[in-house]
Amino acid sequence: MHLTAALPAQHDHTPGYTAQLGAPLGGHVRIRLRTTLPVEGVRLKVVQVGEIETLPAQEVTGLAGEGRWFEAELPLHEARVRYAWQLDLPGDHLNLTRLGLHHSRRGFRSWFQYLAGYSAPEWAWKSVFYQIFPDRFRNGDPENDVQTGEYIYEGRPVERVDWNHPVDAWGDIHGHYGGDLAGITQALPYLKSLGVTGLWLTPIFTSPSNHRYDITDYRAVDPHLGGEAAWDELVTGAEAAGIKIVLDGVFNHMGNENALFQAALAAEDAPERAMFTWRDTPGKPPYHSFFDVPTLPKIDYGNERAVEEFFSGEQSVVRHWLRRGAAGWRLDVAHMLGKGGTEADNLPLHRTLKAAARQEKADAYVFGERFYDPELALDGQGEDGAMNYHGFGLPVMQWLAGATYFGEPSKLDGAELAEILWDAYHALPPQAALNMFNLLESHDIGRAHWRLAGNRTKYRAALTLLLAYAGVPCLYYGSEIGLSQSRNGNMPWCREPMPWDEGQWDTELLEHVRALVRVRRETPVLHTGALRFLHAEADAIALLREVTDAEGNVAQVVAVASRRAEPHSVTLTLPGGEWQDALSGATLTGGEVTLDATGGRLLLKV
Amino acid sequence: MHLTAALPAQHDHTPGYTAQLGAPLGGHVRIRLRTTLPVEGVRLKVVQVGEIETLPAQEVTGLAGEGRWFEAELPLHEARVRYAWQLDLPGDHLNLTRLGLHHSRRGFRSWFQYLAGYSAPEWAWKSVFYQIFPDRFRNGDPENDVQTGEYIYEGRPVERVDWNHPVDAWGDIHGHYGGDLAGITQALPYLKSLGVTGLWLTPIFTSPSNHRYDITDYRAVDPHLGGEAAWDELVTGAEAAGIKIVLDGVFNHMGNENALFQAALAAEDAPERAMFTWRDTPGKPPYHSFFDVPTLPKIDYGNERAVEEFFSGEQSVVRHWLRRGAAGWRLDVAHMLGKGGTEADNLPLHRTLKAAARQEKADAYVFGERFYDPELALDGQGEDGAMNYHGFGLPVMQWLAGATYFGEPSKLDGAELAEILWDAYHALPPQAALNMFNLLESHDIGRAHWRLAGNRTKYRAALTLLLAYAGVPCLYYGSEIGLSQSRNGNMPWCREPMPWDEGQWDTELLEHVRALVRVRRETPVLHTGALRFLHAEADAIALLREVTDAEGNVAQVVAVASRRAEPHSVTLTLPGGEWQDALSGATLTGGEVTLDATGGRLLLKV
Repeated sequence: MHLTAALPAQHDHTPGYTAQLGAPLGGHVRIRLRTTLPVEGVRLKVVQVGEIETLPAQEVTGLAGEGRWFEAELPLHEARVRYAWQLDLPGDHLNLTRLGLHHSRRGFRSWFQYLAGYSAPEWAWKSVFYQIFPDRFRNGDPENDVQTGEYIYEGRPVERVDWNHPVDAWGDIHGHYGGDLAGITQALPYLKSLGVTGLWLTPIFTSPSNHRYDITDYRAVDPHLGGEAAWDELVTGAEAAGIKIVLDGVFNHMGNENALFQAALAAEDAPERAMFTWRDTPGKPPYHSFFDVPTLPKIDYGNERAVEEFFSGEQSVVRHWLRRGAAGWRLDVAHMLGKGGTEADNLPLHRTLKAAARQEKADAYVFGERFYDPELALDGQGEDGAMNYHGFGLPVMQWLAGATYFGEPSKLDGAELAEILWDAYHALPPQAALNMFNLLESHDIGRAHWRLAGNRTKYRAALTLLLAYAGVPCLYYGSEIGLSQSRNGNMPWCREPMPWDEGQWDTELLEHVRALVRVRRETPVLHTGALRFLHAEADAIALLREVTDAEGNVAQVVAVASRRAEPHSVTLTLPGGEWQDALSGATLTGGEVTLDATGGRLLLKV
Repeated sequence: MHLTAALPAQHDHTPGYTAQLGAPLGGHVRIRLRTTLPVEGVRLKVVQVGEIETLPAQEVTGLAGEGRWFEAELPLHEARVRYAWQLDLPGDHLNLTRLGLHHSRRGFRSWFQYLAGYSAPEWAWKSVFYQIFPDRFRNGDPENDVQTGEYIYEGRPVERVDWNHPVDAWGDIHGHYGGDLAGITQALPYLKSLGVTGLWLTPIFTSPSNHRYDITDYRAVDPHLGGEAAWDELVTGAEAAGIKIVLDGVFNHMGNENALFQAALAAEDAPERAMFTWRDTPGKPPYHSFFDVPTLPKIDYGNERAVEEFFSGEQSVVRHWLRRGAAGWRLDVAHMLGKGGTEADNLPLHRTLKAAARQEKADAYVFGERFYDPELALDGQGEDGAMNYHGFGLPVMQWLAGATYFGEPSKLDGAELAEILWDAYHALPPQAALNMFNLLESHDIGRAHWRLAGNRTKYRAALTLLLAYAGVPCLYYGSEIGLSQSRNGNMPWCREPMPWDEGQWDTELLEHVRALVRVRRETPVLHTGALRFLHAEADAIALLREVTDAEGNVAQVVAVASRRAEPHSVTLTLPGGEWQDALSGATLTGGEVTLDATGGRLLLKV
């Protein structure tokens, strides 16, 4: 990784270097390289059938930027094309890959990637998302609240919990606070004023638990959330507010009260039995289930009916809700989907799912919950992207908090943070990297506020990185007004209800978030720009987003983040030119600068 | 990559750290970690269904070596298990992967790998191979020589060429020198005295060209090489000499004179037509062929008969020659095999091929010609290993020669050489890395002698690395006595006939090669040891091979190589203890040492 403002040789996915993203398979795309090295010639190397084909590159003139430009036609002979550049120098030659310049030929995994025929949901790149856990966001209609004792689940009656009562029982899935879709609809003006343009709702379909990851009916909005009418009203209102909604697709397992599973249980010869896998393992449910939890039977996609029911069928669940107004799917435990009670054929199944979604809605945004390294799944054929715990949220928060989300202490420093972020970013095809769903916190891990011991300065630094990073930023409901948690740990403590008494809000933080969101939305380079790192020291990092247009002109944004709560002077080298702080409006000139990085800085090239 | 004699935390595939290689799928294997860090605890992380499972590790005592030992049971739930260690320290924790120690969780591609149920052809690890291009090695029976005008190939009569006539016509496949299998049989005492225990013969089946990669009959030894009797005699003689023979499997394409292809051409409705793919592309043969050469029609493994004929059938070519005494297969352009005129299903086809080979001979050694990065193919299911151009021969020779095999000048230095070698090594499962077929030169690229401008000192350095490296070393016929080439370039110039007038031999070089081969064969740590790098400067590198036994005792070998022709003093830090130069017998003590690295040094821990 090069921590440098000016690369001696450069190529990325933006228009100056790559004429078009997703050009059709079988065609060509014009790509370019810019270099300040004394090259005698430049060639393009392409992997073809496991061999390296060398193609000519011609010098082109009339483009802006320091150095010389070379241009070549990249043949798109397969869905994922791997390529590199060769620079011939006096008495030497260098290879340029995603890893930078090397004298040796690096492994193909480090080469540039081009996804032919892949169309990304580019609206998501321009969006700022907001995650809502429906039971905890806002109670818009007390009439539909779950009532204490209304039904029994897992042998225990459900409970209605008062909105002001802190979450207080670990693993409790019986306590319902009463949030609903009408509440979200009521909050649309709030969300719009925050600048949010995308919502990810955790499950909204009929389910007995408060988290609703145990779905009884995939085609019904839970009546306790307001049912179908509330959904339609929300979709209409959101559309008017310019907000798209991504739903949570729980396709690895269903709830045991689901009619399909009940039918399977009812008779040995029920056709539904083949939608699950049965076993006889002491101490475990007689069927495969999510982490052996009996209420969460795992769906067997070796069964064609299951594939059709959820993914490919004309009336599949995936298609149904896209027709009903959803803009995409977040896929719960995406890495687990498979055949025969296992994850076998996971990637082909995701291709089937994605193909159905795209047939239904050409720009559907489909991303997986892959809590761990998702690299192998993201080749454009299956999920567009993944929740970016591995390559963003976990390392960023580990660095800022000095501990993992499990509370394990860590001396991860800025240099290593930049290295792991870069490692995860550069391994992905560029559109997949821009499709990544970036987050600092969620309904599954401790809130950033809590992990940062309530320190708003550090939280602002985290937000600066979130909104500047490559990928789709997502806020977690309530953190923008300072919502934290009352107990130490991950879920369910991170699922406190959102306070609507504005007296409880950190309005200064809210205004800061609003300002950052505005900058993100108004700054195209943050939507599509390439990423690299400019600076790293133990307590601070700086990253650069960059778009080079077809004429070679460069648009740049720099984000600087410190993990210190107190004023922290950082000296780094900015690319040349005039820069402006996106929030304060202060200006500075490129080159070596010293600035206060506390709480994060966003600098725009003027 | 850490250039260090003592790792603060260590784990590898040798017995002290990994109780067994290839333990059965579904079971467990005991693995260990040794560390000098002040750990408070150690845990094992395993990738399971795309998630990370954390397992306990217990401290064990009574083992040798500095620091403390921890032990865990690794569950073997899939064919390739990925795992890492977590070290809990006061106020910190670290992850240990193949990349070393990191504060952050690295991508799965960097984790340790264990191949469950995989049995490596371990005899190959102990072998020293020797590549023979049969037409050029030795003429044992002038009676069977191709005679000038004996037949016509591609419209031109073949020619008998005098043994002393330098190779002089680029691309000429018509000139036959008369080498044959009887010649190899005659040379067995020579090969045995050189210490060779494995032969790779380029194709020996009936073919019209001198290279025989255009096979007419896969089940017949070319009569010009002596036919079946000569093969049987060679096998018998080689076995008596302790030498195993690997044949060259040209399964991507056949020669156009092959009866299968002739039958396909003869009738539109011939069943053989389905073994090829037909097309109507202006300027190209009406069928897919190797690089569009009309005499090399590509086999379509979408056709079941083709799969059975070559791989899986009871009488398949793969099985036939293993029954006839071959010890394994080198697979020509392994990356190209596929269906429908493409490389589609390349890896599944290799699994079919390997399964058939192993059924026939449990320790068959199957490796592919994958001239470029083979990482994705080497998961233990298909080929055991690959010809190691990418991860050994090309970068080593580029560094030594200051140019690629195409003559492109390069300033690749020792630090970057160590980096690319390590990059290629660490990415493979350990057995695959030990199965890699290492070479400096071959019938396809320029001889090392020629590339090093005849400099024997530099060639000795190259050989030192070859014989010390992880993987199976292979010499190219004649280089041991100084055979070079008469013209600049790659094939066919590198295919000069072997001189048998010993007056033409560089006997000093021959004795040096013999000594290196002897050390390689007598030093078990070079057969199975883990690899890491100790030192790198522009003109010198040092690598360490290491085996830790079940009691924690360490056996080590260090190889030092310089690329200078003149005396070159190198200062590096050896692991502690007493060391002996494997060739000179000189002794030295571990720690910082300064030694003359010229021509390469092999140091054995006493």
